[in-house]
Amino acid sequence: MNYSMIRYVLFRAFQLIGVLMLLPLVTALIYRERQEAAIFALVLGAFFLIGTAGSLKKPENRVFFARDGFIMTALIWLLISAAGAVPFMLTGTIPSFADAFFETSSGFTTTGATILTSVEGMAKSVQFWRCFTHWIGGMGVLVFMLAVLPLTGGSTMHLMRAESPGPSVGKIVPRVKNTAKVLYEIYIGITILQVVLLMITGLSLYEALTTTFSTVGTGGFGIADSSANLFPVSSQIVIILFMTLCGINFNVYYFLLVRKPGEAFRCEEVRWYLAVMVLSAAVIAPGIYRAGLTDTPFLSFHHALFSVSSVMTTTGFATLDFNLWPQYARTLLFLLMLGGACAGSTGGGFKFSRLLILARRLRNEMVFATHQKSIRQVYLDGRRVEGTTVKSVTAYLGIYVAVYLVSFFLISLDGFDFETNMTAVAATLNNVGPGLSMVGPVGNYSAFSPFAKFVLSFDMIAGRLELLPMLMLFRRRTWRGQ
Amino acid sequence: MNYSMIRYVLFRAFQLIGVLMLLPLVTALIYRERQEAAIFALVLGAFFLIGTAGSLKKPENRVFFARDGFIMTALIWLLISAAGAVPFMLTGTIPSFADAFFETSSGFTTTGATILTSVEGMAKSVQFWRCFTHWIGGMGVLVFMLAVLPLTGGSTMHLMRAESPGPSVGKIVPRVKNTAKVLYEIYIGITILQVVLLMITGLSLYEALTTTFSTVGTGGFGIADSSANLFPVSSQIVIILFMTLCGINFNVYYFLLVRKPGEAFRCEEVRWYLAVMVLSAAVIAPGIYRAGLTDTPFLSFHHALFSVSSVMTTTGFATLDFNLWPQYARTLLFLLMLGGACAGSTGGGFKFSRLLILARRLRNEMVFATHQKSIRQVYLDGRRVEGTTVKSVTAYLGIYVAVYLVSFFLISLDGFDFETNMTAVAATLNNVGPGLSMVGPVGNYSAFSPFAKFVLSFDMIAGRLELLPMLMLFRRRTWRGQ
Repeated sequence: MNYSMIRYVLFRAFQLIGVLMLLPLVTALIYRERQEAAIFALVLGAFFLIGTAGSLKKPENRVFFARDGFIMTALIWLLISAAGAVPFMLTGTIPSFADAFFETSSGFTTTGATILTSVEGMAKSVQFWRCFTHWIGGMGVLVFMLAVLPLTGGSTMHLMRAESPGPSVGKIVPRVKNTAKVLYEIYIGITILQVVLLMITGLSLYEALTTTFSTVGTGGFGIADSSANLFPVSSQIVIILFMTLCGINFNVYYFLLVRKPGEAFRCEEVRWYLAVMVLSAAVIAPGIYRAGLTDTPFLSFHHALFSVSSVMTTTGFATLDFNLWPQYARTLLFLLMLGGACAGSTGGGFKFSRLLILARRLRNEMVFATHQKSIRQVYLDGRRVEGTTVKSVTAYLGIYVAVYLVSFFLISLDGFDFETNMTAVAATLNNVGPGLSMVGPVGNYSAFSPFAKFVLSFDMIAGRLELLPMLMLFRRRTWRGQ
Repeated sequence: MNYSMIRYVLFRAFQLIGVLMLLPLVTALIYRERQEAAIFALVLGAFFLIGTAGSLKKPENRVFFARDGFIMTALIWLLISAAGAVPFMLTGTIPSFADAFFETSSGFTTTGATILTSVEGMAKSVQFWRCFTHWIGGMGVLVFMLAVLPLTGGSTMHLMRAESPGPSVGKIVPRVKNTAKVLYEIYIGITILQVVLLMITGLSLYEALTTTFSTVGTGGFGIADSSANLFPVSSQIVIILFMTLCGINFNVYYFLLVRKPGEAFRCEEVRWYLAVMVLSAAVIAPGIYRAGLTDTPFLSFHHALFSVSSVMTTTGFATLDFNLWPQYARTLLFLLMLGGACAGSTGGGFKFSRLLILARRLRNEMVFATHQKSIRQVYLDGRRVEGTTVKSVTAYLGIYVAVYLVSFFLISLDGFDFETNMTAVAATLNNVGPGLSMVGPVGNYSAFSPFAKFVLSFDMIAGRLELLPMLMLFRRRTWRGQ
């Protein structure tokens, strides 16, 4: 392994985290939070100095292979989760390391699961930092580094591959660096648009900014204990729209930008994703209306669509406490958590394109069982999916199930109920945030033991990086330098 | 499709079910249950006549293909579940068809899930029939037909493949018919041995017979509401032994019989199965001892091993109500339900050989992700597993998860809690019997709606036939005769 390269990139990440604290520092100055301003300034300075000092010496050998990319990505995500936790601890918002690490990895991975019983007492600058981690994590830390840092040479594609969600990674423009830039430009454009629209519906700049960070990163950290219920219905509709948009493969926007609408609309994944979303909301709406939880059929559909979109895009905002909904609706929301959003979006979960490839692979298997000579090929968007991609998708399901069940057992040692454990893993591994029962939309993760919190933090990062990078850390072969 | 062949085999199955009712008829006569005797005689006569009349004309074309084999198997299992339900309904033991169908498919599939709130009031002959269905289903209905019926010609291997559990089917002797005979000889040998041993530990012939049927078929229907707690610890140890033996691939016994112990002990699947069993019991025992549920550490281990063995072999007997055990123990038992027993045994579940193939496939995938040129081969028992088998195993996981989650959603319409629904599907799809919460060892499935009962009956049969045959029934292509 190229250790000097890994060391270099890790220190650059340190530097980056320091720089990113400029925004909460400004917030603290605006709202005259003196103690918080001092702390953010201190952390900023310290991280920037450490990062700069450590990365002064550039590595001579800048070539790194797929495995280095995986390991580097996993380590960077662990590092930023620990480093980003420092302001929470120093400001006294979250004193324990296990809790602060959980909260920060929840932020960067855009999960939105919290150990806080209330978010309303917090300093505005700390709250800003909390929501800002969603925004950074949404498009990816490494993608960001690729876009703004002078990381030349080396197979940067390996980094992109390790961090980007989905069964296969396409460079939308020839150079990786430029692809990363295009993605961030689209991301910033969407962000600005949502801030403006939210302000039109009556939110303050602060409310609009923090909510937008949590929406476009599909994170879900709120600034009120009542989550999105704080806002008027018009703002909620804006949130639905942008959650849904950010759950779509960003390549679609690129194709629209370069005026190739044909390519954009060919995407089967997006069509399935939208169809399932509307259909699920239509199935849930009558249930919550009949249960008397809303006043009008329109509001039933609105709240159903909000929750379905929140869960499918793995954002985790809530307007109503869906934990209290009829059992079939809760069950459906749980299943939608597993499915997740589209590949190449800021959302998590198993991803619709994987589901489509898997479904077609299984259909082929049924044919194969009866016609042994049939040829097993899988098509998506009218193109043949490579055999190795199909194999990787079926293997991904196996790895996913294994990580899921092991985590489920490990957190059961805390003794909480079956539903809490099952949905806590679903909500963290898929980066959703709230689950059901104890970890439902009005609940939180504070009651878990530090051990369970680390397991769930692991699941959040593993889910965000799509399992392999984090699992590589556990292989002896990885460290033997082979 | 070869419809005339399917018709012929279905009528032969009818005939067989009639003949099999001789045993409960004899039981009814011995215990002087006149009404039940009359009913069994009537049903026997009717089924035998219908079966004989319908199969007088032998089909001219006796060749059938893989798909015919799958469909035939699925239809036969639906037929015997419906036909076997008739005595339950006529004797008034289970008046509703949905309930009687559930109970009978639970019997034949060796699940052991019941809709009865008490089994103690039942006539002895009906109880005998109930347990006897486990014994018939354990080794397989079609395997039985292949062994005793003059079904010559045609590719009987297709039937064997559709009914036998495991990722690949080996004929242990060259002709399918003889393989079936050898399997049944071993099965009968084990049965006799257990009856004798149980009688030595103090059980009556009736108790020993019914308990043995439920044990060797890895079914789990008991003759007392307290399940195996009715019996002394010595009998319970015999039951542990025979549950465990019947969860092992029967090929192992064949190799031992023909004095090839080397082949027998080479079986990695069996070694893993036994290791996981003992280890899990050792993990659970301290938990139930500390919870004060048993008096001595020995008894803790005994009851832990009993439950672990019961759940892993998918039998479903209970000595203690494991629903009341610590959460980690309940969680572990749930996970063991999913894993199941060995391929080629009478047990259900995902099967250990599939787990091993899958685990090795996933390890390869991790290597492949970093070394794109690595060759992905999977070895089991020192032999290379064929690529198509590996592909089928990964696809099997996908189909398994899909059936699981769809069933989970469908039964959630009844509104019961998450844990009940989740474990009810686990307990039926894996042919275990009891789950947790409402369907725990002292609970039952009576509260479910008829719709949910049919879904769970489907899961039992689908699980027993390893998914594909039952799913084929839903494909339009199947019925278009292509």
